[in-house]
Amino acid sequence: MFVAMKPHATEAEFQAVVEKITALGLTPHPITGTERKVVAVIGNVASVEPDDFASLPGVAEALRVSQPFKLVSREVREEDTVLDVGGAQVGGKAIAIMAGPCSVESREQILETAHAVKKAGASFLRGGAYKPRTSPYEFQGLREEGLKLLALAREQTGLRVVTEVMSTEAVPLVADYADVLQVGARNMQNYALLERLGQIEKPVMLKRGLAGTIKEWLMAAEYIVAKGNPRVILCERGIRTFEPMTRNTLDINAIPVLKSLTHLPVMVDPSHGIGIRKHVPAIARAGIAAGADGIIVEVHPRPEKALSDGHQSLTPAEFEGLMRQVRVIASAVERPIA
Amino acid sequence: MFVAMKPHATEAEFQAVVEKITALGLTPHPITGTERKVVAVIGNVASVEPDDFASLPGVAEALRVSQPFKLVSREVREEDTVLDVGGAQVGGKAIAIMAGPCSVESREQILETAHAVKKAGASFLRGGAYKPRTSPYEFQGLREEGLKLLALAREQTGLRVVTEVMSTEAVPLVADYADVLQVGARNMQNYALLERLGQIEKPVMLKRGLAGTIKEWLMAAEYIVAKGNPRVILCERGIRTFEPMTRNTLDINAIPVLKSLTHLPVMVDPSHGIGIRKHVPAIARAGIAAGADGIIVEVHPRPEKALSDGHQSLTPAEFEGLMRQVRVIASAVERPIA
Amino acid sequence: MFVAMKPHATEAEFQAVVEKITALGLTPHPITGTERKVVAVIGNVASVEPDDFASLPGVAEALRVSQPFKLVSREVREEDTVLDVGGAQVGGKAIAIMAGPCSVESREQILETAHAVKKAGASFLRGGAYKPRTSPYEFQGLREEGLKLLALAREQTGLRVVTEVMSTEAVPLVADYADVLQVGARNMQNYALLERLGQIEKPVMLKRGLAGTIKEWLMAAEYIVAKGNPRVILCERGIRTFEPMTRNTLDINAIPVLKSLTHLPVMVDPSHGIGIRKHVPAIARAGIAAGADGIIVEVHPRPEKALSDGHQSLTPAEFEGLMRQVRVIASAVERPIA
Amino acid sequence: MFVAMKPHATEAEFQAVVEKITALGLTPHPITGTERKVVAVIGNVASVEPDDFASLPGVAEALRVSQPFKLVSREVREEDTVLDVGGAQVGGKAIAIMAGPCSVESREQILETAHAVKKAGASFLRGGAYKPRTSPYEFQGLREEGLKLLALAREQTGLRVVTEVMSTEAVPLVADYADVLQVGARNMQNYALLERLGQIEKPVMLKRGLAGTIKEWLMAAEYIVAKGNPRVILCERGIRTFEPMTRNTLDINAIPVLKSLTHLPVMVDPSHGIGIRKHVPAIARAGIAAGADGIIVEVHPRPEKALSDGHQSLTPAEFEGLMRQVRVIASAVERPIA
Repeated sequence: MFVAMKPHATEAEFQAVVEKITALGLTPHPITGTERKVVAVIGNVASVEPDDFASLPGVAEALRVSQPFKLVSREVREEDTVLDVGGAQVGGKAIAIMAGPCSVESREQILETAHAVKKAGASFLRGGAYKPRTSPYEFQGLREEGLKLLALAREQTGLRVVTEVMSTEAVPLVADYADVLQVGARNMQNYALLERLGQIEKPVMLKRGLAGTIKEWLMAAEYIVAKGNPRVILCERGIRTFEPMTRNTLDINAIPVLKSLTHLPVMVDPSHGIGIRKHVPAIARAGIAAGADGIIVEVHPRPEKALSDGHQSLTPAEFEGLMRQVRVIASAVERPIA
Repeated sequence: MFVAMKPHATEAEFQAVVEKITALGLTPHPITGTERKVVAVIGNVASVEPDDFASLPGVAEALRVSQPFKLVSREVREEDTVLDVGGAQVGGKAIAIMAGPCSVESREQILETAHAVKKAGASFLRGGAYKPRTSPYEFQGLREEGLKLLALAREQTGLRVVTEVMSTEAVPLVADYADVLQVGARNMQNYALLERLGQIEKPVMLKRGLAGTIKEWLMAAEYIVAKGNPRVILCERGIRTFEPMTRNTLDINAIPVLKSLTHLPVMVDPSHGIGIRKHVPAIARAGIAAGADGIIVEVHPRPEKALSDGHQSLTPAEFEGLMRQVRVIASAVERPIA
Repeated sequence: MFVAMKPHATEAEFQAVVEKITALGLTPHPITGTERKVVAVIGNVASVEPDDFASLPGVAEALRVSQPFKLVSREVREEDTVLDVGGAQVGGKAIAIMAGPCSVESREQILETAHAVKKAGASFLRGGAYKPRTSPYEFQGLREEGLKLLALAREQTGLRVVTEVMSTEAVPLVADYADVLQVGARNMQNYALLERLGQIEKPVMLKRGLAGTIKEWLMAAEYIVAKGNPRVILCERGIRTFEPMTRNTLDINAIPVLKSLTHLPVMVDPSHGIGIRKHVPAIARAGIAAGADGIIVEVHPRPEKALSDGHQSLTPAEFEGLMRQVRVIASAVERPIA
Repeated sequence: MFVAMKPHATEAEFQAVVEKITALGLTPHPITGTERKVVAVIGNVASVEPDDFASLPGVAEALRVSQPFKLVSREVREEDTVLDVGGAQVGGKAIAIMAGPCSVESREQILETAHAVKKAGASFLRGGAYKPRTSPYEFQGLREEGLKLLALAREQTGLRVVTEVMSTEAVPLVADYADVLQVGARNMQNYALLERLGQIEKPVMLKRGLAGTIKEWLMAAEYIVAKGNPRVILCERGIRTFEPMTRNTLDINAIPVLKSLTHLPVMVDPSHGIGIRKHVPAIARAGIAAGADGIIVEVHPRPEKALSDGHQSLTPAEFEGLMRQVRVIASAVERPIA
């Protein structure tokens, strides 16, 4: 259930609502950033009637939320969540472009890539400092050294930094360096990590798990928001199916479904979504045509020498080509590039 | 293996190649409709060398085909297959638009729909006369009566007719009425049906099976082409995954992968691909942005009363809205509407 | 809905029920082979009340069937369907053993295999004369010559013959030679074929499609039974999942689920289910432990030279070893070997 | 690559091997608990030849390991890993029985269940104190209070305690109370957690992820073993497929495949594997028949009132019935109950 206040409701009227919720043994979750004041009511609401609240002074309406996800639902908040990340928006009218290498490998590699993607039109730099790898014997990332190199690239280019965090312990350190903290597909339901990220102030980009249903994914986002951090970005990066010719199956259906169910921004990752370099642009175009709020693309100056994901990374020149195509499609759906 | 003749090779030189193939205990498959004369060599080619053919008079080159599918492969034929269906092209530069009801239900219903989709810009009318239904107790289609109504709609509107054929016995009858014969997802590997369709002159639209890999799908197309009918159109309509919120998962990755592997036209069916009316336009846009050669969309004048697939059928007005969006995206990828 | 007659109801009382069903615009489907007379009522039964029938003379009870599959449901028929195939039972207390090569390849091969599997304890000989192959260029079976060889093997060994039919046209010919006609996984929803098989008198073994849900599979069986042939055997042979290490994923869950939903016999095919020769016995044991009514196993005298499925075929000696294990497990679940 | 010493090789000879590995820039991983001394060589071994080691004094053989998982592979260690957990074995000849509620809910509930499953023949008590739940608003477990109740149940019954750990922070606390620490399906690739569990001395039961391939699962186990804890138990609990009638699809194929690839013990969880109470015994029987080393089953004194997983929990009486069936099957495969 959620309770929305009238435009000119007073703070005292709002507090009265909150107190009533608590008095009923339920938990109030005020929703921030909306035009009108709204509070979600969490707990066993079966025995409570919307009318119990609707009659209170200053209350505009009280409604049951039919979906199991509440705070992230469009039922609770109609307007899109628009995040401002150092001046660049995610979730607004403009398409957000994030690009960079799978892993930060060296000072030279990250700086060269950052300048190239900046020039081509990206406003975010991606790059892994902590790398989840299937094998314990593969390159696991430069860790703090990688974070420092990302910060250096930001300093030189003005790009905002998106990088993955894999453990609760690393959250403070990664949050020190990153502008957006990414949760990888394998950790979509790592609830300890999600709850920890609910306690920071920075945006979190939550990738979809390989077998995560759309509902489970939204519930995972709900974990973060329920702990107090409403700055969540969803990223579709492909699911696991029987098809062996592509690395994953990018679920293009998820884009319009999500945009209708949630107010959170939705990104598309064509690089992991198809996993084949030459087809990345086609999937990037499709994602934007379907309504995504942005793309995140792997770019590496020398893909054939990359320590990870070289087969799906674009060269800077290929990324420029992709950006030309993306601009045309974005313009066709009447959206500028951020 | 395949053997390509020089531009001015004589018929006698071509026949000499064909005879040599036969003499080696292999089967020659001449490929039609290409600029230069090409013949595929089928059978155990392991012991044959390309040089055995390359040295013959009039031969430009002889190459091994690495893929298990041969005649449908771009290795054998580089140029796109462009089908002319009563003056409308499929597989050429222009985007082909097919629209109409899931099932032909009545004279009034099919004529009303045909006029509406024609007006909105479609050049093909879809409509099921034979309906594969999960339950034997559900509406199975008007059968021959349905075919006659489709022909009547063609007469009135000039639209070409696309309709499904479910059995070898029905092939001659359906071929009498239809301009394009559709093979449904459940029959993708019904080899008796595929072989029968290899013996007709009309185009065949082969939908992807629910669990069909891209390779198996191309092999199914190969069955038709190997029997003598090169007029095959592929149609991506979604695969079966674990996601329950959508009817199927449209495999957008399949579009660029197919366009690179085969010269056959590739259509997208957003109606079955997502199965939710309000999201059909987003998936139609994505399909075209990804490089599809056309879309096939379910339209019904009164979806809430449709005998099948009402939840995913657009009204004529919604279809007009979709066409406006499709025109913008098609133009962005520099393709007109057929 | 279905109507069950009292034990001593007269034929006239039964006919009165049938006429009433017809008079209501519904279709009566008498169920054969049960202890008491039962008739299923097909059509839109929403407006009919069970009491409309329960009050008629000779009627024991009238009940709505909640499942979309009717005639194959345990709601309509509680007792197991037990098929007698030339003296060997399928679906009774005894476990049915079917074994033989993937394809009939030669007189010597099929006779050698038949004698071997007979000696080891099989009562059915499997062998493909018509082979569905992913590629049109692969061995497609000996066709009628293969059927004759199977008949010869039956003559010499007394084994009943199980073989696949792939097209409606071939049904009469295959039915002439076979004791059980098999529908392969690719044809599970080939409704023209299912309806044709509903018009013969011989048992049909219906394999599960690669993406067939349990419900769709039972509906496919319903097609055969609704057309008049109640002799249907279901065969679980693995579904398609993301796991690449095994050919398919044998859905062991399907065994108890089916045994509770339907009265039809349920077989397990461990050869296709896992696709790795050395692991076939483990899956055969699991199938019987889970409650299957029998197993169908690929056996070839020289698997390394088999024209198809050699990697999953057992040698006769390995099949003897499997039979020893199967006997122990069958005995543990208190079932003899047929 | 791995290097195995001769039976009477000296410690000095072994140290010489270790030093040579290090000198080559590679990492030595001594394997413990085998009859002969073995050391795995991790790193880029492409440029090293087995002969470089085979010629050293005391070395019996040096072999390349073809699988990407090394320490958990049967190539490195042929004999089964047999874990002794407070006198009860897992992975030996005897079948291990683990049973108990999904969640620890109260003192009365856990004690009543513990006594019941002990009496029926279990030697391990399962019960969740930390519960991963799809929704942040559902019951998350009694946490430390739950651990204390499990310890009390152990004290009263002698059962060993199996319970889940969801975060690195909780590892020390859970390890204080539990005999076996469980990693849930959602955390199969939570590498921070796996690495932390590699640093404890207690056995870890690693459940398969919903979309985890067998290879990825073994690589996840490798993370734990590579960090120093060889006491890993694998637990197949079903994968996610398209089939909606069952909660998951228990991958019975995984049992024989794992037993041939790894020396680690393999358990089966029929409760999550099928998710339907009345079918749990059939899947438990199948798992043991396929070669599993044990089963873990959800039991609750009043399933209809359980705070989680009630629909798949057995009553104590039903569990007794299951145990009777399991004994018969275990005996058929010549294995006692632990």
